[in-house]
Amino acid sequence: MVTIPKNIPYKTYLKEEEMPKTWYNVRADMAKKGIDINPLLNPGTMQPVTLDELSHIFCYELSKQELDNTNQFIEIPKTVLDFYRMYRPAPLVRAYCLEKLLDTPAHIYYKFEGNNTSGSHKLNSAIAQAYYAKEQGITNITTETGAGQWGTALSMACGYFGLDLTVYMVRCSAQQKPQRKTIMETYGAKVIESPSETTNVGKAMLAASPDNYTGSLGTAISEAVEVAVTQPNTRYQLGSVLNQVLLHQTIIGAESKAALEEYDEYPDEIIGCIGGGSNFGGLIGVFMKDKLEGKANPHFIAVEPESCPSVTKGEFRYDFCDTGKVTPLAEMYTLGYDFMPAPTHAGGLRYHGMSPIISKLYKEGYIDEARAVNQVDVFAAAEQFCRSEGILPAPESSHAIKAAIDEALKCKETVESKVILFGLTGTGYFDLYAYDKFNKGILANS
Amino acid sequence: MVTIPKNIPYKTYLKEEEMPKTWYNVRADMAKKGIDINPLLNPGTMQPVTLDELSHIFCYELSKQELDNTNQFIEIPKTVLDFYRMYRPAPLVRAYCLEKLLDTPAHIYYKFEGNNTSGSHKLNSAIAQAYYAKEQGITNITTETGAGQWGTALSMACGYFGLDLTVYMVRCSAQQKPQRKTIMETYGAKVIESPSETTNVGKAMLAASPDNYTGSLGTAISEAVEVAVTQPNTRYQLGSVLNQVLLHQTIIGAESKAALEEYDEYPDEIIGCIGGGSNFGGLIGVFMKDKLEGKANPHFIAVEPESCPSVTKGEFRYDFCDTGKVTPLAEMYTLGYDFMPAPTHAGGLRYHGMSPIISKLYKEGYIDEARAVNQVDVFAAAEQFCRSEGILPAPESSHAIKAAIDEALKCKETVESKVILFGLTGTGYFDLYAYDKFNKGILANS
Repeated sequence: MVTIPKNIPYKTYLKEEEMPKTWYNVRADMAKKGIDINPLLNPGTMQPVTLDELSHIFCYELSKQELDNTNQFIEIPKTVLDFYRMYRPAPLVRAYCLEKLLDTPAHIYYKFEGNNTSGSHKLNSAIAQAYYAKEQGITNITTETGAGQWGTALSMACGYFGLDLTVYMVRCSAQQKPQRKTIMETYGAKVIESPSETTNVGKAMLAASPDNYTGSLGTAISEAVEVAVTQPNTRYQLGSVLNQVLLHQTIIGAESKAALEEYDEYPDEIIGCIGGGSNFGGLIGVFMKDKLEGKANPHFIAVEPESCPSVTKGEFRYDFCDTGKVTPLAEMYTLGYDFMPAPTHAGGLRYHGMSPIISKLYKEGYIDEARAVNQVDVFAAAEQFCRSEGILPAPESSHAIKAAIDEALKCKETVESKVILFGLTGTGYFDLYAYDKFNKGILANS
Repeated sequence: MVTIPKNIPYKTYLKEEEMPKTWYNVRADMAKKGIDINPLLNPGTMQPVTLDELSHIFCYELSKQELDNTNQFIEIPKTVLDFYRMYRPAPLVRAYCLEKLLDTPAHIYYKFEGNNTSGSHKLNSAIAQAYYAKEQGITNITTETGAGQWGTALSMACGYFGLDLTVYMVRCSAQQKPQRKTIMETYGAKVIESPSETTNVGKAMLAASPDNYTGSLGTAISEAVEVAVTQPNTRYQLGSVLNQVLLHQTIIGAESKAALEEYDEYPDEIIGCIGGGSNFGGLIGVFMKDKLEGKANPHFIAVEPESCPSVTKGEFRYDFCDTGKVTPLAEMYTLGYDFMPAPTHAGGLRYHGMSPIISKLYKEGYIDEARAVNQVDVFAAAEQFCRSEGILPAPESSHAIKAAIDEALKCKETVESKVILFGLTGTGYFDLYAYDKFNKGILANS
């Protein structure tokens, strides 16, 4: 039994009026220091993509945000703020029970983004992207989803605004998680398993090799983009990797920083999982601002799966963002656009590349560390966490939990009271097939 | 798009230190008015059950609470309060978006109890019951679960205290919701499908008729009780119906009332779903105190499924609480201890009886209204709710949503700005097989 100090809250919810009113655009500060990312390239011309070209794929405002390296802060539209008020501010939790279990002098905090029906932080960007589409008069949206968190989030957002949404869902995920398909349909979305016969890219993949049948995020992206650029009044939306997505997700870090001030603490270490980089980019956002400005020097740790080690084993170079080579090329850490993670790998974090912003900040040493962890260790950490802190975490988030536990155990050895903040991006309610394998001892190691 | 007034919060979280420190025991006030419930009867002697007899089934402190009709308030133990701080206070939400959708002048509020991994209010009593067992030195707990919310909650609570838990899960639920089984196992519980070969009651049921194979809550209770009274250092715990459970759940109403005061409102109508009565009893608790004391007169509406209409179609009389006739008899509204709801009925609220407290308060007119609603209407209400308010509700909770929407539409006709409070007891993340049927138009009407 754990006794929680009376004078310190277990968790902190900011008040609705304390919620950040702006998103932080880290590129503005990167550009000032001469470390801005290199431009996206048009795959046809291999020249930098223009705003006009980009806005055939994405909504106009989102294309502007994608290219913006001058505005440090971008105002959150009132309608988006109102929607945020349905499930935000999200709690910052002091993990007293986990600390006690580990017997560590570290102060462990986590920012919990799973208390909404999408089950993750993805809703923060989904509602923004759907809003800009609605404002522009767009009626149809396409997207892809892997683990299903992004698809669910965008279904909720499109349902709210009455937009027509088609989701290309990676087939192996759709079959592991039929509930994810149902929840998207409940919010009014149309879900198609990818690769599919509805696009040229999908048909080609299916024809090329039966191995392609289980699908990948890269292929699903290609299908969704193909539909967006060939159908009228349709745009494509993406839940990670892009600068615009990292921008929207900075609300995570901004709320975390404000809530930590109520505890009178500043993080020594900030830990997040990375797949495409949206949660980690959002979590570190305003703390990276402090670092770029020389005001503070938190140690940033990005955690990825051993089975899809984009940053720890990938190359930093230009590559396609999708398998079908229909998207612009980005300079990033990549395992190659045709990389397929093992089907035994559970959950998300299956993307071959990495957010160009995260890639650049790591390359330049502003993100201090990238670390790959194996799947069984991740689920063991998840089990420790759920039994002590109550919340059943998503496998993705559990990569961050694993690293946070390791760091807290180091503090025990060195007798240091470090302040560790990690991102608990979501819940594992739709990942129980993987927990079941772990419980039975038959989960593959990576 | 809905514009939410800036000066009024969308949702209200009390501060942790504002959380109620006591549970409210309505029986003390019922006894004062001469309307206390009649005693439980020992099925062997047909005499009132004594504390000594009861404490062979339940822990001693819980047995005392079960029989207590004198103490108006019972202090919440510090350890339980600390656990509550992990997920409470639970938010009170003003349903602006639903109001807008319905175009009603009513003010609709809901108390949301689903923001924890059990997905429902059940954790409020689970942690209390596990605590008293731990304090008494009990090592093994047995229980049953139908929809799975209670089993998950008790698994979390027993996992937290290191108690050994065996859950008898109604077989048809276990097969519809394998994820529920996995989540309980992840928290360390042993899950057995009921009827099973592990008890005499189970064996007899299986031998009697193949129809019994799908199971019922009544049978699962019998099995769990049989094990508790025959195994050493073992006690039985139950997630609804009992006075002790309603007692623990009064934190729902107490928080709701305190949060409504921040809006300067008092409910005209209070609506909850009823299966065994734990959520509804907890929600109306302190408001019922006002009514019993003549201080206020809110209109209470209990909502049940047409397929299991204990209050609207049942009889008020003594009956067994279980199918195997091993438990004490209670005076309550009942459909008969051998009643089996149709297997087409989704989710919980499948119990043949009703909390004796709820039964008595309805019989005496203090609960104003009971209403039965059909399954398809309930899911249609759930869909309206999730698309406007974001949260995917549990089918159980959606019975209350259906009634709240109907009441709000009446207000539209009569142009009345009534304050309607309903209990959103949980989330529907593990009920997607039923949503899938609804989406496909193949859900049975009751």
